Amino acid sequence: MKETRMSDPEIFVSAAGPDFSRQFPGFDRLTHPRVVIDEPTLLGNIGKMSALVAGRAQLHPHVKTHKSLEIARLQSRQGATGFTAARPYEVLMLLEAGLAPVTLAYPLLCTETIKTLLSAAGDAQDIRFIADSPETIAALADGARLAGRKAHVFLKVDVGLHRCGIDPQGDSGLVLARQIDSEPLLAFAGLLSHAGHAYGAGNPEKVAAIAGSELEIMRALRTRLQKDGMETPCISIGSTPTILANAGFDGIDEVRPGNYVFYDLTAVRLGLVDRRDIALGVAARIVSVNDHFAIANVGSKTLSSDLGAHGTSGTTAFGEAWTPDRDQPFLVAKLSEEHAFLQYSGPRPPVGTPILILPNHSCPVANLSGGMQMLGDTPRLVAIDGFVR
Amino acid sequence: MKETRMSDPEIFVSAAGPDFSRQFPGFDRLTHPRVVIDEPTLLGNIGKMSALVAGRAQLHPHVKTHKSLEIARLQSRQGATGFTAARPYEVLMLLEAGLAPVTLAYPLLCTETIKTLLSAAGDAQDIRFIADSPETIAALADGARLAGRKAHVFLKVDVGLHRCGIDPQGDSGLVLARQIDSEPLLAFAGLLSHAGHAYGAGNPEKVAAIAGSELEIMRALRTRLQKDGMETPCISIGSTPTILANAGFDGIDEVRPGNYVFYDLTAVRLGLVDRRDIALGVAARIVSVNDHFAIANVGSKTLSSDLGAHGTSGTTAFGEAWTPDRDQPFLVAKLSEEHAFLQYSGPRPPVGTPILILPNHSCPVANLSGGMQMLGDTPRLVAIDGFVR
Repeated sequence: MKETRMSDPEIFVSAAGPDFSRQFPGFDRLTHPRVVIDEPTLLGNIGKMSALVAGRAQLHPHVKTHKSLEIARLQSRQGATGFTAARPYEVLMLLEAGLAPVTLAYPLLCTETIKTLLSAAGDAQDIRFIADSPETIAALADGARLAGRKAHVFLKVDVGLHRCGIDPQGDSGLVLARQIDSEPLLAFAGLLSHAGHAYGAGNPEKVAAIAGSELEIMRALRTRLQKDGMETPCISIGSTPTILANAGFDGIDEVRPGNYVFYDLTAVRLGLVDRRDIALGVAARIVSVNDHFAIANVGSKTLSSDLGAHGTSGTTAFGEAWTPDRDQPFLVAKLSEEHAFLQYSGPRPPVGTPILILPNHSCPVANLSGGMQMLGDTPRLVAIDGFVR
Repeated sequence: MKETRMSDPEIFVSAAGPDFSRQFPGFDRLTHPRVVIDEPTLLGNIGKMSALVAGRAQLHPHVKTHKSLEIARLQSRQGATGFTAARPYEVLMLLEAGLAPVTLAYPLLCTETIKTLLSAAGDAQDIRFIADSPETIAALADGARLAGRKAHVFLKVDVGLHRCGIDPQGDSGLVLARQIDSEPLLAFAGLLSHAGHAYGAGNPEKVAAIAGSELEIMRALRTRLQKDGMETPCISIGSTPTILANAGFDGIDEVRPGNYVFYDLTAVRLGLVDRRDIALGVAARIVSVNDHFAIANVGSKTLSSDLGAHGTSGTTAFGEAWTPDRDQPFLVAKLSEEHAFLQYSGPRPPVGTPILILPNHSCPVANLSGGMQMLGDTPRLVAIDGFVR
């Protein structure tokens, strides 16, 4: 992870690939395609994020990136004081492992699910929900009644991604915060945002501008609520780009980055990290070569077809395939379900050549893996934990 | 499945969505997002493909589309006389279930895997491999020696996708067929092709032209081999588009379509089927609405980010979200990992609205599902079988 120095964007981009002298040891001896993690790089990423946030905000990483209790525990040991999840089963996995509190940063409508999650929490504060509409608040109130427990609810604020969240310029924030507050079994937990549009910002200055705008929006909304007589217990923000290229954390209580454990080419293209900060790759081999392409034995069922996060992209390629003996990657020009089409020039790369593919977006790659191979001093399989849905 | 009438391409495209009066019953009562299958449509697709192929070629469906033993058994009951797979674990799943012979339509380099697969087969002919290079033939010979069994090997032929396969215009086909034939523990099984570039053809006439070209290429190569003194026991071709918009099956022994069990919007855009032939959808709900988008509770971790097959696409949207009360779908304009951004015009659709998303590409959706909900007279969960890798 590079320091975010706004004055010199060029320093953020490096053409160097993985440092195979120390990274991803043994990837080229694997006989099957595998999603691999370089352990020292992973630990470095976790440690640097913790250091960046320490003393400035609580760190509640989003586990959707890895879905692994082993990695969540590494984050916990390095200062994470809570976690964030996107699906109910991710919450249950964390609660069962004692990794609380967990914020389910997703609006729920199913009262049975809300009841199940509330009942699974040791303490009612071990789980926090979000809502952004009368309907989702009503569902949480019903679920809390079913469980016989109080549900802690953040008001989700749209700071520009235009996904979930109330419009901070309108009056619905005040109306809905009051609605939460007025429900006997709901507690207003605060304001929560995700500036995912930062993934489309293009460079660190523009990411930092989005981070600054997010801060202003959230603080202004807190002030409006305060004038209306409502205290905001917590402001929670988060996306890896806006935490790295931050605008300070003044007034922020909690941050929820996820992707930073692995990074990927999207973070490199944003100028936020080097390729050598990427901890997750796909170990594969060239299995066929023709006049047009070299073909590797992984496709969209391993790499996903993501060009970036939230549909953003600065690329038309599906990844970069690096080898220890070349200083440029083969670009992944096309994907079938189980094949990657690699562009090459010059002599044909030999059939059997091991490659390490750096993905555009590491989160769906981990999700597709069914288990990741940790490479380092103690090679081992890292499980994708929990059940599906 | 529409009949493939080349003279009138317009008839292949219908703007009508699913017929909710008979298709996907109960999708709107599901409380969680689910990949769903309409059983009568599935059975119809399987039956029509069987009828199309019956008496003209052996039908060896590709199971990568569903990865389900239950659906493979339905295909078996409807005339499938063998199966095709892309990953070793898919082969093992089929062999253990007694669904042989299985063609692993993928070049292998790992001799241990080859040995494992050969050893798992009841009869050596229950598994058939492919090769397209001296290296993959050598690996198969080594694996056969390790297993102490004969390996049956197709020569893979590149008919225009430029993925795996020998160039049929060059001499490597003859050289490699001889190499297979000369190995004491390898048996030359024949010629095998996949005209996946048909997915980019755009209309049924162009698909049929590719199908015709594939036939010519394969028959010409067989003739060349014959002149060289080598008999070709089997010509195996296959892709759903080129079987539907076929150019006849003269000289073809075996076909290997996969996608036809479910179809998807790619097949609709090619003009090969109607939306009402699509048997797989994603049941979801609108969970948030803003001035820009309606947001549904499934994203790229459910729908994949595929725009088509093999990187082809005639679209920039990630699917169509249909509801029973609208005659036009909401287009899926963007995807986050767990959210779909739906375009809407006019009044805001209510939070909680159930939607059925027809995907661009059904195969990766089934793969991501972890299990599919069958809808029809006997609602049940259809397992994704086998272990991962």
